[in-house]
Amino acid sequence: MEEYTKLETDFLNLLKEQSAYGEALALIQWDLRTKIPKKGVEQRSEVIGVLSQKLHHLSTSEQMKKIIDQLKNKTDNKIIQKAVEECEEEFERNRKIPEEEYKQFIMLRSKSESVWQEAREKDDFTLLQPYLEKLVEFNKKFADYWGYEKNRYDALLHMYEPGVTTEILDQVFPALRDSLSDLVKKVNQAKNKPNPDLLQHHFPKQKQEQFSLEILKRMGYDFDAGRLDETVHPFAISVNSSDVRVTTRYDEKDFRMAIFGTIHEGGHALYEQNISGDLAQTPLSSGTSMGIHESQSLFWENFISRSNGFWSNHYDLFKSIAPNEFQDVDFNDFYRSINEVKPSLIRIEADEMTYSLHIMIRYELEKALINDEIEVKDLPELWNQKMEDYLGIKPTSDKDGVLQDIHWSAGDFGYFPSYALGYMYAAQFYNAMKKEMDMDSIIRAGNFTEIKEWLTNNIHQYGKMKKPLQLLNDVTGESLNPEYLVDYLTEKYSEIYDL
Amino acid sequence: MEEYTKLETDFLNLLKEQSAYGEALALIQWDLRTKIPKKGVEQRSEVIGVLSQKLHHLSTSEQMKKIIDQLKNKTDNKIIQKAVEECEEEFERNRKIPEEEYKQFIMLRSKSESVWQEAREKDDFTLLQPYLEKLVEFNKKFADYWGYEKNRYDALLHMYEPGVTTEILDQVFPALRDSLSDLVKKVNQAKNKPNPDLLQHHFPKQKQEQFSLEILKRMGYDFDAGRLDETVHPFAISVNSSDVRVTTRYDEKDFRMAIFGTIHEGGHALYEQNISGDLAQTPLSSGTSMGIHESQSLFWENFISRSNGFWSNHYDLFKSIAPNEFQDVDFNDFYRSINEVKPSLIRIEADEMTYSLHIMIRYELEKALINDEIEVKDLPELWNQKMEDYLGIKPTSDKDGVLQDIHWSAGDFGYFPSYALGYMYAAQFYNAMKKEMDMDSIIRAGNFTEIKEWLTNNIHQYGKMKKPLQLLNDVTGESLNPEYLVDYLTEKYSEIYDL
Repeated sequence: MEEYTKLETDFLNLLKEQSAYGEALALIQWDLRTKIPKKGVEQRSEVIGVLSQKLHHLSTSEQMKKIIDQLKNKTDNKIIQKAVEECEEEFERNRKIPEEEYKQFIMLRSKSESVWQEAREKDDFTLLQPYLEKLVEFNKKFADYWGYEKNRYDALLHMYEPGVTTEILDQVFPALRDSLSDLVKKVNQAKNKPNPDLLQHHFPKQKQEQFSLEILKRMGYDFDAGRLDETVHPFAISVNSSDVRVTTRYDEKDFRMAIFGTIHEGGHALYEQNISGDLAQTPLSSGTSMGIHESQSLFWENFISRSNGFWSNHYDLFKSIAPNEFQDVDFNDFYRSINEVKPSLIRIEADEMTYSLHIMIRYELEKALINDEIEVKDLPELWNQKMEDYLGIKPTSDKDGVLQDIHWSAGDFGYFPSYALGYMYAAQFYNAMKKEMDMDSIIRAGNFTEIKEWLTNNIHQYGKMKKPLQLLNDVTGESLNPEYLVDYLTEKYSEIYDL
Repeated sequence: MEEYTKLETDFLNLLKEQSAYGEALALIQWDLRTKIPKKGVEQRSEVIGVLSQKLHHLSTSEQMKKIIDQLKNKTDNKIIQKAVEECEEEFERNRKIPEEEYKQFIMLRSKSESVWQEAREKDDFTLLQPYLEKLVEFNKKFADYWGYEKNRYDALLHMYEPGVTTEILDQVFPALRDSLSDLVKKVNQAKNKPNPDLLQHHFPKQKQEQFSLEILKRMGYDFDAGRLDETVHPFAISVNSSDVRVTTRYDEKDFRMAIFGTIHEGGHALYEQNISGDLAQTPLSSGTSMGIHESQSLFWENFISRSNGFWSNHYDLFKSIAPNEFQDVDFNDFYRSINEVKPSLIRIEADEMTYSLHIMIRYELEKALINDEIEVKDLPELWNQKMEDYLGIKPTSDKDGVLQDIHWSAGDFGYFPSYALGYMYAAQFYNAMKKEMDMDSIIRAGNFTEIKEWLTNNIHQYGKMKKPLQLLNDVTGESLNPEYLVDYLTEKYSEIYDL
């Protein structure tokens, strides 16, 4: 039994109180997106307001400040020291923005999200433009309040991917972009293309659920500490450290949505389920960054479940559950079809090769906006031009272009790079694994326990005890390197497309 | 648009904050009993602790006291005046018990509930006895803190059924008890008894759910403001005024559990769904008492859904959903079987005729305990004797006797009478309805809209704006009268049992 000082105990109790409000909010979010009857929504948002405000007050309270000042660098307990650092950072971040300004931002953001809906429906960017302009101004001001060393955009990036800077991204992204663009061109020119039509047979929801549940179980997802439910926009959520839920969406015309979506969210959930119990009820009991989180979902979704080895093991199971129409589909045709590469206008429909190119576009534009190098009004044209340059296709409407994502309308700038970072991290982790284990045989044998344990030991258990780039270095022995993603994609798709 | 004074606005905002914590707690309760994975439970109870404490602090805060003192009898707004009275009562109730004493009570209660489980398993009352003794002492002390006019037990009764006193119960209960005992004796001697075996065919869960959903819909339950889920111990819960959820339990060997259970909980839910929106986010937006609430569930479960008219309309629907084994069951046999009267040892398995007799036993015993007329150690024997006197059967083990209910182990004394009051209220309301509408034809026609509207207009809309006995008087034009229940049961069962 750990011995704590009076001050440490006070601090842990404060964290427990915060964590209680956080847990209530998480459950409310889950319910809001899975179960709530529609008339209940309106009042529920007031509850979110009250609890969020309470949480905000706790994190910026004088009591918190006092404990931070007294404990920081004066505790022998490593977890407490790290938690103090997390709390200090949040305290500073929240305190630096004048309360009135933050309220205005929240109100603007909420209005802007509904204007975004309207702008999309009417395919009219000019409706959203004045809101985006104000949101960019707010983000610039916030970045200035928070401070940065070299680039104002770094202050925003820091919120989602602490330690990653514009300098780093500007080293890795262009190389990645050029390699991916080349690869995409080659694939486009390939003669023997897969035919995804053969996947699009009716597949009853219940059957898809049965397969999803089975795969989650095989991945090592603990159903005593989680559950699977249906939703519109799938997500995974940690309600508490022993209650991490997965959601998915069933499209009876295309099973890929649910199957790969469930595995993706399952990857997020495995991360949260396997954080060390020692960190429970502290702010450290959570994935260390958006990018590392995404690396875990993408690892399972792509590196595992879109691999030849995975399906060589699971194709019998799939057929035993799938309707008649799938029984005659040849294994090789199936495998190639679930890995079709096809430049698309829409980011969330993109395959693993083109996905990061969508991110580059957003990164380049938002960085330029925050640094006053471009104006909001020019976004549609710049967007379309970059689509043509990187992906070889050009949107004919803003609805399929600059208006497709909610992030900017929700005031989120600096978030997008995490997605591409997730791809690079995943490939780099995968390469490290390969040095220790014969990954192909393990995947072919469906021996996910070994993989899950490797991820737990090397990544999951640490929660926020390690910052993303430190974690990457500890696990792989080097800093961020986009080559692993390029190599992985080149090898995989050379075979599939006979390049 | 209503104009509020500054003080009124402050008060309403305080109520909204309370209501937000209440809503979060309600959702947590619902989740805990329907969806939560088992490992998530432990941490969830800490969340309940934090939020309950916060709610308790708000209701007993100096801020609350100040607003109450400034607003009481000084507002023109009737809703605000009533809400102030509710808040004052809660403030007084919570403030009168010394904080330390209440904490000890909560801890004892929680320990006692698990000892109760053990005592039941081992069929050993002596394990529970010392805990019950302490819980009775606490309740006596609390009653003394709260104060009462004539009988100490009244102070406890007041929490569940404000306005109802021992004096009133001692007028109505003995008469009811004697009439019911006589009726039960007659039924026991009847020759032509129904045969419930014919109901006990396998009935798949999904089919039961389908029937339950259809009946809820016909009752007028609003699925845009609620949902139906599965649980172990069924309940209805108002998460907010537009999100009132029903739960049920499916026994594939006996459909009665789910069907009548769903309708029962649906009756509770209709009450909460139809409280006036003007009362939302105030403590008035809730059923006015346990007994009135129970009257609504029992009204739908017994007076409607165990009636001949109901099944004459719904038997075709039932058969269209029920498995083959039910297809040859004669309507009359079916109707008589779902209304079998049979004295049972277990309260929650009791039929509508014997149920109230179970309550009398508990009422007489707990009233005597609180007034120092009997001792805890004598409960088992007294219980068994009363069972024999009123129901003509005697438990052979305490597990099927005094140990069957959780209420006393949970420290709840004064709660039981609400159940019997619910039966009496329901019969009295039913009689009032009959004066205005031809109930039999309406039920036979399945025209529940008219019934639901009557209940909304006369009962539901008022929430806590009227106290139970005032409501009863306003709706029926007289005070509590057990004759209506006796008459209803006599008429119904004379026909069924050919008495």
